[in-house]
Amino acid sequence: MGPHPPHPGGIAPKPVCLVIGAGAGIGGHVGKRFAREGYHSVLCRRRDEEGLRRLVEEIETEGGQASGFLLDAAEPGSIEERVAGIETGIGPIEVVVFNLGAQIGDRPLKDTSYKAFELGWRLATFGLFRTASAVCPLMEERGRGTILVTSATAAVRGNAGQHSHAAAMGGRRMLCQSLNAEYSPKGIHVVHIVIDGAVDAPDTLGRMLGPERFRRLREARGLEHDGLLLPAEIAETYFFLSQQHRSAWTHEIDLRAFSDRPWWNH
Amino acid sequence: MGPHPPHPGGIAPKPVCLVIGAGAGIGGHVGKRFAREGYHSVLCRRRDEEGLRRLVEEIETEGGQASGFLLDAAEPGSIEERVAGIETGIGPIEVVVFNLGAQIGDRPLKDTSYKAFELGWRLATFGLFRTASAVCPLMEERGRGTILVTSATAAVRGNAGQHSHAAAMGGRRMLCQSLNAEYSPKGIHVVHIVIDGAVDAPDTLGRMLGPERFRRLREARGLEHDGLLLPAEIAETYFFLSQQHRSAWTHEIDLRAFSDRPWWNH
Amino acid sequence: MGPHPPHPGGIAPKPVCLVIGAGAGIGGHVGKRFAREGYHSVLCRRRDEEGLRRLVEEIETEGGQASGFLLDAAEPGSIEERVAGIETGIGPIEVVVFNLGAQIGDRPLKDTSYKAFELGWRLATFGLFRTASAVCPLMEERGRGTILVTSATAAVRGNAGQHSHAAAMGGRRMLCQSLNAEYSPKGIHVVHIVIDGAVDAPDTLGRMLGPERFRRLREARGLEHDGLLLPAEIAETYFFLSQQHRSAWTHEIDLRAFSDRPWWNH
Amino acid sequence: MGPHPPHPGGIAPKPVCLVIGAGAGIGGHVGKRFAREGYHSVLCRRRDEEGLRRLVEEIETEGGQASGFLLDAAEPGSIEERVAGIETGIGPIEVVVFNLGAQIGDRPLKDTSYKAFELGWRLATFGLFRTASAVCPLMEERGRGTILVTSATAAVRGNAGQHSHAAAMGGRRMLCQSLNAEYSPKGIHVVHIVIDGAVDAPDTLGRMLGPERFRRLREARGLEHDGLLLPAEIAETYFFLSQQHRSAWTHEIDLRAFSDRPWWNH
Repeated sequence: MGPHPPHPGGIAPKPVCLVIGAGAGIGGHVGKRFAREGYHSVLCRRRDEEGLRRLVEEIETEGGQASGFLLDAAEPGSIEERVAGIETGIGPIEVVVFNLGAQIGDRPLKDTSYKAFELGWRLATFGLFRTASAVCPLMEERGRGTILVTSATAAVRGNAGQHSHAAAMGGRRMLCQSLNAEYSPKGIHVVHIVIDGAVDAPDTLGRMLGPERFRRLREARGLEHDGLLLPAEIAETYFFLSQQHRSAWTHEIDLRAFSDRPWWNH
Repeated sequence: MGPHPPHPGGIAPKPVCLVIGAGAGIGGHVGKRFAREGYHSVLCRRRDEEGLRRLVEEIETEGGQASGFLLDAAEPGSIEERVAGIETGIGPIEVVVFNLGAQIGDRPLKDTSYKAFELGWRLATFGLFRTASAVCPLMEERGRGTILVTSATAAVRGNAGQHSHAAAMGGRRMLCQSLNAEYSPKGIHVVHIVIDGAVDAPDTLGRMLGPERFRRLREARGLEHDGLLLPAEIAETYFFLSQQHRSAWTHEIDLRAFSDRPWWNH
Repeated sequence: MGPHPPHPGGIAPKPVCLVIGAGAGIGGHVGKRFAREGYHSVLCRRRDEEGLRRLVEEIETEGGQASGFLLDAAEPGSIEERVAGIETGIGPIEVVVFNLGAQIGDRPLKDTSYKAFELGWRLATFGLFRTASAVCPLMEERGRGTILVTSATAAVRGNAGQHSHAAAMGGRRMLCQSLNAEYSPKGIHVVHIVIDGAVDAPDTLGRMLGPERFRRLREARGLEHDGLLLPAEIAETYFFLSQQHRSAWTHEIDLRAFSDRPWWNH
Repeated sequence: MGPHPPHPGGIAPKPVCLVIGAGAGIGGHVGKRFAREGYHSVLCRRRDEEGLRRLVEEIETEGGQASGFLLDAAEPGSIEERVAGIETGIGPIEVVVFNLGAQIGDRPLKDTSYKAFELGWRLATFGLFRTASAVCPLMEERGRGTILVTSATAAVRGNAGQHSHAAAMGGRRMLCQSLNAEYSPKGIHVVHIVIDGAVDAPDTLGRMLGPERFRRLREARGLEHDGLLLPAEIAETYFFLSQQHRSAWTHEIDLRAFSDRPWWNH
């Protein structure tokens, strides 16, 4: 377990953990977790260069290696060029954490524009397809690799107001199964991770609710907020999954707080 | 059961069954089935004006009403304008049969172009979203309506080579659940119909296999070819679903030939 | 479609529709529906001989054929002997409606006795296994037959207090899939029907709620109570399923009132 | 992470990991894994006292603590008494690994006796219910506990010849969801683990295939046999799941070898 040893006769680059969608929630914490284990974490996010720099510094302060890039995944070529740049400039991508969300809150059909519907797909489904198209051939050549895909309740059931999000996530799940069917026998581990609840993340949940409602929700979920999904704890599972031996790989897994109801209950 | 009676004091237009994707398989047979019950079937397909005309004539010969339109669903505005045209020129759309496929055969990831992946989504997922956006407000105003969505095995499991198709169909299924969650209480019946096997259809299966392989497959599936899904029999279930009383509506259903294996078996 | 014609040169017995669990709800209405189409409905229930007689008389008054038997499905040999008796004394069983419930209301684990847990299984899972063991060889010999299995939300998701019910129904669903895998290619149609909501049935829902709460629930669900599942409408779907052509068989289907939420929503 | 520290001012007993179904496959390896982390592993199995003793000795040789008991789970009171005995004699049960199988190989319906069908349920479904009934109140009082349930492909899809096994496992899965719904908010973590493939285990797979076919299968699955599920690797996931923070618990997870097909593919 853990990354592979340096090449004999030279200093090999660290294995890279590429996080697409590295905010202050799941993405950032997963990046930190892998850096702590000897990976070079490459953190990509669309905006907030300042936040990105802080994240990289936190990792470096802990003694880890990290790089940060602003990346607009909706932009043609953006993911592909970043992958190519990392492979030549930093090291082999051993792990991809695909963590782009497409949640836009509940909106009735009439308030869901074609543009919003398409953007959901473009980020959440097509973004993963492009990422896989870029990294799978590289991983296949190396005979190994891991793609950890953050997914959501909306991948397994549609709900009122979730037209865009559910369509995008449902596509993402089926894409994960298709990727797994082709690439698992070639040594590439694809995991579809259903985050089935609210995550204690200021960048996503916090932004959606606004500061006041976010503060109240956190208080309502217990002293340690552990009625919310804590991103540092989610990161433990991501890291574990990346280290599973290939004789016992997980393809689908769900995560939620103990006090939350699974999506199938009410 | 059956369409509503004519308005008192005037000749009301027949209720319309709009079939998007009306080839010689499921779409065409469902169009005929509804026409036989007093609906005006509006048949839309991308090409083969001659085949379309034949279909309309067959319905008229049987004493039914039908109209045919070439429609490129990938074209912006095409579905929306057709819906508007039908409502003003033919009659109220009571039933929509959304029957656009996106099957392009099994292709490994490296042979699945961005364009092919996007086209799958554009037809199979976004096409349904646009259709629903156009008809749901009309149906909501009338307090009733039915949307029958042809779907595929790929909506419930991804498979090797199915990257584009499965992502599109998985999105379609979650969209159906989202539409149902919003519109079922408003009297609109959305059904997701998993066609879990090969359909005896020259336009789709026949085209994919070529004439010789198609002929051999048909022969292998029994004298009456009923080891394949017969589109006329599929149409019976579509019509039945459209007539279910709202106290007992089906949202998800599967169909396959008796001699075929369900997708979950092997 | 419809039952097979009488043998040439003699009066063949009517095909039998055997209903196991024929109360005033789904079972009784399905029995009536099949009788109306020319089947001899054999109605079996555990108690209320008076209610059973009334059901048989209603069918006969409509011009149909029916027989009624008290049957304690938990009793060893009870189902098996009834099946044998029908085949020799009434006619060939073409359709079985397995309609035994095992709902005992929500009970926390500590209030769910071993006995209650076992009884749930004995009726809902083992009862179906015994029924299938008795009728499948007969149907296989005739090359056709239909087994319609009433199931419940609890077959697809467990819930608080549903330990016994969910375990029994989950077993029932997997048994249906196993029966289907073995017998569908032999011409026996097995359907698992998820009744996903409250049924307007005095014998089951009425008994569970008591008369006053049942009355209030019915009123709350609309003038025609069609916010509840109306058993006469459910029966339409059961009959339709029994008549599907074998080239397009349904194995799994759900039913709920338009105004109710599917189990996966909340 | 890891078991709780000893009480101040006294030697607290080690936390217990109780394995019900501790052969040379998953059960034994999970027992070893927990012992290595400071748990007292209590290993229970139906037969082979010699094998059981060996397993205990291996753990002790590694410096761990273990006890072994023969236990016939089909026997009334057997599980309940063992649980009580452990709690008073060894220590608090923090983790239960419920690992009883009910696979009897593929058998057509006519060769599946009532007795075989019932035994499947008695071990795989009722056995878990009895175990939960015994340990949940104890865990609830302590505010924590973990129940790891080994499950099988048959829990999520029935298949030809799997009448007994699938019915038992389907019930097991729905029972896990029901237990989770009641007990997760009380701090008890229930995990349903789908072992979706052949396990490299002499006691189960080896016994079913016979020594010669088992040897050939192992050879066919690669030098390290890692085309089979290696029980030591499965045990890594079991241990990890038991250590998940309660803010991010998994309820359902699958495991299979990289080169195997998931149950939904073929």
